[in-house]
Amino acid sequence: MATPALHPRAGAPRHSPVAGVLLTNGDIDHVAGLLSLREGHAFGVYATPRILSVLDRNPVFNALDRDLVARRPVALGQPLTLGERLAVELFAVPGKVPLYLEEGSPEIGGETEDVVGVRVAADGGASFVFVPGCARLSAALVRRLAGAPVVLFDGTLWQDDEMIRLGAGSKTGQRMGHMSVSGSGGSLAAFARLEVARKIYIHINNTNPILLEDSPERAAVTAAGWEVAYDGMEIELS
Amino acid sequence: MATPALHPRAGAPRHSPVAGVLLTNGDIDHVAGLLSLREGHAFGVYATPRILSVLDRNPVFNALDRDLVARRPVALGQPLTLGERLAVELFAVPGKVPLYLEEGSPEIGGETEDVVGVRVAADGGASFVFVPGCARLSAALVRRLAGAPVVLFDGTLWQDDEMIRLGAGSKTGQRMGHMSVSGSGGSLAAFARLEVARKIYIHINNTNPILLEDSPERAAVTAAGWEVAYDGMEIELS
Repeated sequence: MATPALHPRAGAPRHSPVAGVLLTNGDIDHVAGLLSLREGHAFGVYATPRILSVLDRNPVFNALDRDLVARRPVALGQPLTLGERLAVELFAVPGKVPLYLEEGSPEIGGETEDVVGVRVAADGGASFVFVPGCARLSAALVRRLAGAPVVLFDGTLWQDDEMIRLGAGSKTGQRMGHMSVSGSGGSLAAFARLEVARKIYIHINNTNPILLEDSPERAAVTAAGWEVAYDGMEIELS
Repeated sequence: MATPALHPRAGAPRHSPVAGVLLTNGDIDHVAGLLSLREGHAFGVYATPRILSVLDRNPVFNALDRDLVARRPVALGQPLTLGERLAVELFAVPGKVPLYLEEGSPEIGGETEDVVGVRVAADGGASFVFVPGCARLSAALVRRLAGAPVVLFDGTLWQDDEMIRLGAGSKTGQRMGHMSVSGSGGSLAAFARLEVARKIYIHINNTNPILLEDSPERAAVTAAGWEVAYDGMEIELS
């Protein structure tokens, strides 16, 4: 799949090539960037009704002028065409409500519309699956991922208690809605059986040692056929 | 006034030297940064009750754990001590409600608690006045600014219809709550009578030609004794 040139249109000082934003989660790291796209640029925001309701409950997102920025509800499993070339489908991923909407101890790992994954297919047939946050690999998710040509997957933590041990936080990965990379219940072990042609860790916390090119943990994921995403990474689909 | 070293504490991987945030406005460019300070770091958010009510109406700001990040209402004119060394006072500035709370045609230039300026004085006597947004120079504001040693002031636009002429937007500066730099009603003319020792333009839109070091507009503000702020600028108070 050839990469279209994405740059502002010549002679249009405030033009942006962003035609749409698809949200897979209502948490801060997924929605705060909308506030940097604000005012005067037309695009669409696509998400489940549940994730869109989070935006609706926060008037700050009205900085995106609703006359220009349409909010488009997308149901799980509903085929959606973006632009002329992309077919998109959302599916439930085990997760939890956004941190800022937690009340007491939230349910972790439910397959609701709070956290979704997305399959993106180009008209030529190339496709990838994007799952930036995942609390556990459910049977439905295993069926969805098995045999996929490219999967970008939650690589938040190496080990569930990593942030606590490093003094960087008080929560486990599980409490934050993330399964770890390592361990018997980790993504490294789980994907060993899924026959995914290309596997890329994304959404990697700065405590995760796979970020260090010379770490044994990086060597372990590389040996298992994973790539570790980096700023500016470009992925060619075929 | 010596500048204290502001850096993360050694051995504390998630420590931040930010002890407090004082908001002068509820608009996106003043509050969105709070979402990058979130989770696990204790500090105070200081603002007028009206500006704090904007945060309260947006659950997304609960990402700042209220047990760690106290919201501190500050009345106009109320003396406030921040840390051990700084005395702070808020005052009304002609402005308007935040863009995302506008309904129909908002009142422009009212002296409410929606937009404020702040005077900051150190214990040694050095002080400055900070006014990042200002729709007009009211009599009260003139009294507040006259003779100040250092003023940081709204330099959004050079000319009121600048964004429209450049095709960068549909609004005048006045409609956005900003007085222009140039013209008979501009800040350049108004400050000529205020005897402010050091004047610095801040909050400068990317259409404003004073940003260009070789522009006639930059020459004009420099000739009038103004400085133009830049990323990383440090201001030494005495």
